[in-house]
Amino acid sequence: MLPNPIKKFVELFSGLPGIGPRQATRLAINVINGGKAKARELSKSIAELENIKTCSQCFFIYDDENALCPVCSNPQRRKDVIAVVEKETDLISLEKTNKFTGRYFIIGELKKDGVLDAVQKLRLNSLKSFIQKEPGGKAEEIILAISPTTYGDFNSSLIAGELKNHAKKITRLGRGIPTGGEIEFADEETLGDALKNRS
Amino acid sequence: MLPNPIKKFVELFSGLPGIGPRQATRLAINVINGGKAKARELSKSIAELENIKTCSQCFFIYDDENALCPVCSNPQRRKDVIAVVEKETDLISLEKTNKFTGRYFIIGELKKDGVLDAVQKLRLNSLKSFIQKEPGGKAEEIILAISPTTYGDFNSSLIAGELKNHAKKITRLGRGIPTGGEIEFADEETLGDALKNRS
Repeated sequence: MLPNPIKKFVELFSGLPGIGPRQATRLAINVINGGKAKARELSKSIAELENIKTCSQCFFIYDDENALCPVCSNPQRRKDVIAVVEKETDLISLEKTNKFTGRYFIIGELKKDGVLDAVQKLRLNSLKSFIQKEPGGKAEEIILAISPTTYGDFNSSLIAGELKNHAKKITRLGRGIPTGGEIEFADEETLGDALKNRS
Repeated sequence: MLPNPIKKFVELFSGLPGIGPRQATRLAINVINGGKAKARELSKSIAELENIKTCSQCFFIYDDENALCPVCSNPQRRKDVIAVVEKETDLISLEKTNKFTGRYFIIGELKKDGVLDAVQKLRLNSLKSFIQKEPGGKAEEIILAISPTTYGDFNSSLIAGELKNHAKKITRLGRGIPTGGEIEFADEETLGDALKNRS
């Protein structure tokens, strides 16, 4: 029933996160009804993602002429305080707080089976050699900025184990009631953490 | 913080239905991490949507060499029974039932203010001239296959008014309990309709 170019589009786009075949079909029809210029513009914007590089130090993405990403090539950022995050968007969220002056390290999305995959192991090794060379053997602090879920806790212990000889201190993000949140709606676990971390 | 090609991508893709800036960012990063070949394939699949044509009779999309879409160019399909649908995906859903042997007519997504836009008025005029020429002045039946929501009901009356001199009969889709649905969970309105339409 559907023209072949739409079938192809749906096949490819429904493989992307958060897009199912139904939404992919709607997207295709929307693009078609938007006209040829629009389709060309969208097509070009994807093709141009090809030019994006991955930082060999923290694995963040960037597109300027430097050998490293803007954070890693910024001499103002501390080399001995490193925030380990799962993904690019987590890094962006932390960076937006304007409260962090260290470096980042993207380990990649963690599995639920408590095993690091081959890429994650390679990345950890490259982090270890960075710490060996740059902050002279041991980082002052490694912050495991990983979500405080059951799996996140579990994976954090795993990574903490891997890195324990490479940092003077390994910390995690503080837990408590989110700003703007109400005590009434906080679960016991959160409230317990909030009590413990009172300041 | 984000590289410019990603910003551009997010700007364009977050304008598509059901995609917000946050998901667009995730999509861009996913495409980048998927590698250059993947990005090129996705880009190509959008570019190829350019080749899709719109049927001048029913306004459905198609990509073969005919002057009309496969339904409209099929001599087996009745010309005097026409299902008016809002969008392409509604047509596909009806076609999948294999129970309809007439033609379709896509009017475009209806507004909530009970006014047909310029494009919809043009399309209705082209439907009227089709009926004038082809089934000889009056269609046997026009089925308003428009969702039975409050706005759908309202818009259906509007369109029925426009078409009343062009069809012997104007109908809407049957209402009742969906197959597989439970009486217990049907709302009063639906149950009332199901009683009325018992067979």
